[in-house]
Amino acid sequence: MTNNHAYDQLMSFQRQTEALSLVAERLGWDQETMMPSGSADQRGEEMAAMEGILHARRTDPRILDWIEASDPPDVAGRAQLRLIMRSYQRATKVPSDLAQKLAQVTSVAQGVWAQARANDSVADFLPTLAEVIALRREEAACLAQGGDLYDALLDDYEPGATAESIGAMFGRMRPRLVALREAVLAKMPPAALVGRFGEAAQLRLSRDLALAFGYDFSRGRIDLAVHPFSSGSASDSRITTRVVESDPFNCIYSTIHEVGHSSYELNIDPDYKLTPLGRGVSMGVHESQSRIYENQIGRGRGFTKFLYGEMKSRFDFDLASAEAFYAAVNRVQPGFIRTEADEVHYNLHIMMRFDLERALVRGDLTVVDLEAAWNERFFKDFGVKVDRPSHGVLQDVHWSVGLFGYFPTYTLGNVYAGCLWQAMNAAVPGLEGQLSRGDTASAIDWLRENLQRHGGLNSPRETIALACGFEPSEGPLLEYLEAKFGALYGL
Amino acid sequence: MTNNHAYDQLMSFQRQTEALSLVAERLGWDQETMMPSGSADQRGEEMAAMEGILHARRTDPRILDWIEASDPPDVAGRAQLRLIMRSYQRATKVPSDLAQKLAQVTSVAQGVWAQARANDSVADFLPTLAEVIALRREEAACLAQGGDLYDALLDDYEPGATAESIGAMFGRMRPRLVALREAVLAKMPPAALVGRFGEAAQLRLSRDLALAFGYDFSRGRIDLAVHPFSSGSASDSRITTRVVESDPFNCIYSTIHEVGHSSYELNIDPDYKLTPLGRGVSMGVHESQSRIYENQIGRGRGFTKFLYGEMKSRFDFDLASAEAFYAAVNRVQPGFIRTEADEVHYNLHIMMRFDLERALVRGDLTVVDLEAAWNERFFKDFGVKVDRPSHGVLQDVHWSVGLFGYFPTYTLGNVYAGCLWQAMNAAVPGLEGQLSRGDTASAIDWLRENLQRHGGLNSPRETIALACGFEPSEGPLLEYLEAKFGALYGL
Repeated sequence: MTNNHAYDQLMSFQRQTEALSLVAERLGWDQETMMPSGSADQRGEEMAAMEGILHARRTDPRILDWIEASDPPDVAGRAQLRLIMRSYQRATKVPSDLAQKLAQVTSVAQGVWAQARANDSVADFLPTLAEVIALRREEAACLAQGGDLYDALLDDYEPGATAESIGAMFGRMRPRLVALREAVLAKMPPAALVGRFGEAAQLRLSRDLALAFGYDFSRGRIDLAVHPFSSGSASDSRITTRVVESDPFNCIYSTIHEVGHSSYELNIDPDYKLTPLGRGVSMGVHESQSRIYENQIGRGRGFTKFLYGEMKSRFDFDLASAEAFYAAVNRVQPGFIRTEADEVHYNLHIMMRFDLERALVRGDLTVVDLEAAWNERFFKDFGVKVDRPSHGVLQDVHWSVGLFGYFPTYTLGNVYAGCLWQAMNAAVPGLEGQLSRGDTASAIDWLRENLQRHGGLNSPRETIALACGFEPSEGPLLEYLEAKFGALYGL
Repeated sequence: MTNNHAYDQLMSFQRQTEALSLVAERLGWDQETMMPSGSADQRGEEMAAMEGILHARRTDPRILDWIEASDPPDVAGRAQLRLIMRSYQRATKVPSDLAQKLAQVTSVAQGVWAQARANDSVADFLPTLAEVIALRREEAACLAQGGDLYDALLDDYEPGATAESIGAMFGRMRPRLVALREAVLAKMPPAALVGRFGEAAQLRLSRDLALAFGYDFSRGRIDLAVHPFSSGSASDSRITTRVVESDPFNCIYSTIHEVGHSSYELNIDPDYKLTPLGRGVSMGVHESQSRIYENQIGRGRGFTKFLYGEMKSRFDFDLASAEAFYAAVNRVQPGFIRTEADEVHYNLHIMMRFDLERALVRGDLTVVDLEAAWNERFFKDFGVKVDRPSHGVLQDVHWSVGLFGYFPTYTLGNVYAGCLWQAMNAAVPGLEGQLSRGDTASAIDWLRENLQRHGGLNSPRETIALACGFEPSEGPLLEYLEAKFGALYGL
């Protein structure tokens, strides 16, 4: 509490809004992990009702009065006001009916997508997708007020970013990624990990790895989901994973990835709990955490040495050295599925989705032509023909839940992770040795201290720049990839 | 939709309120089944925020205007208005701050109780219990407006019931129950079921029994909880159970009991979904469903014959005939735990709680003296000394979550179940034969058709009277108990 009555009232009102928003988020978690199959329509109504409540609170006219009369006590207080104002201005541009309709339709659409994917039937999904796109375009038009529709959506996930600046960065990255890809694919691939890895043992390993990465089970849990995600914040941030018995890396790296997301939320300064500062600042910065946990740390030479020992003690397989295991973890090959892609291919998946979804939002591409456009582009970029929709246009949940403008934040996250990894290695001596013993404490402490604890205090780019001590750019990521895969493949 | 604009507006507003209330209920489910242990305080804030929203909606002044201008289309419409008015009048008597405070305190108190029970420490629970009682008394004073505090609380769970009428009924029941108890205990008890019954196999049986009782898993699920409960309605009503490896009856009859509750909710006329009519009409009627599933059907000679076969095919144990198994299921013995009590003792547990909680609400008994009062009364009624608080005053969750006035509805439910059982047997020829083959369809159909589908259309007593064709009273239950246990014990 401060001596400033208006500020205190605002923050108390906002605290309840944040709590309600976490309730809505947990409904989403429940839908993906626990909800009975026949409850989808009712859940849509529940989500719409929650969105109605949240929208009314975010547009409450008292917010402006309170902000006007507020004398925030410190820098954090001023940042709170900035974020509340941003949310108010965004929410007031979108009619409540539209916001509720979007919540209801995307909740139901998720089930329609899952069923269509299971049936490998694009046609089953198209009417729903068309409705989601129409609603998001309508929302974007409200938000953009004459400006670019896609930028208006992107701004939800990455404040301050524009499609133009991201497109330009992708343009600089693409030639070096394509060159790296071609050089690697010209070489003989290392041996892959082959075997059957039982579900129960994978889930035990998943739990142990989450602990190794400092995940706090007193404020979280792991469940199974078709499409792994993390959810929640403050004292309750949960992760999900999945198990493929022939490919334990799927479970292992899904888990580590989601632990990165959840740990970011759980490591934010407790003073910011249930305030706007108490959440990760943007999806790009969020992804930088999940990706650095997963890739730079989790798929690095150091940590895979530890992981090799863990795997050897739990499973039977052929790879006879930590070095061979490290090579298998980082095996490069064109594959259909983004979430299973190696680090060389991953960003090419994103660039393709970025171009397609911009065309969808602009109206240059209709859902009827989407599958053909996807397959054509995939063949061009990856040299492989998509063999079924679940390996192609139906693979990702994002568009079904209306997440247009979200995909580029994955590559932005990789770029930020590249910067953070460079800075962390300069700051933490002997890091690889520690990681090879499964000791992530110095790495995680560095991330928490320099980045995670600040939550939404600074802008996304400032957040990275302050942690690294330099302005973020794609350079460090590309150098990291070229060095790592150059060494692995003898380029 | 009707031609009546005010009525349609009211029902549309109410539909969202019902959806939000189901969201709050699901938060409660999550708290008992999924929530990480460190999230209790945050959950308290979330529950309070939801209660704030619900209270504001239940007291929205437009409700009165809409009711005034409404011309409901039919009998159901008039019943909807009656229930909305009832909720409005109740909610407007309680200040929002108090309603939110109660939601927050009882959410956290539940965890405090669970911990105190695990530690067998009454002292750990008393300050919290005192706070819960003080808040509920304050609420009762708002509701009673000079009338009896306990009646005001009871009315939440059993509209139209009074402590006086229930007390009088208990007074009529007690001598016959005590006489039956004494006669039975003077006889040699039948052999008990002895063995180890693995958790996984118990859970599989639990699932199969839920199916045998018609539980719809596409709109529900089973999880484990310390204190079994059912939760939700319409397209999502979930149950919980528990497993004691030495006593499979615990899991079996917890499951069947909760299936009774959830099936009631799931079998209500779909036209009433997300309306006030779409919920079970009272806790007493609810309990009549769970108890008739559990006892009259589940512990009956017919169904236990089927269950014996199921048990024999899954587990190793000594009882050599369905008749011996039926006797073991219905073994009468004084025990500490209400939820494990046989049908002869069960209502004596309730009568004791009814007297104690009335004294707490009146202020005649303070929390400091509660444990002693419990133990003294228990010895008097059951002839056994309570050996530890978790076997005594700490055994039930109810008081921690503020459920004062709830306990008597359990015995009311037993009384109603006695009436329904008499009527069902008159209406369904060959019932015992069907149940002995595990075929519950006629029994469940009779309950759905005559009672469950009506939801909140009629008052609780009318609901029972219409289903039975006669006014409910304690007579049929007592006759059923005397006949059943008379035969079992050769009285």
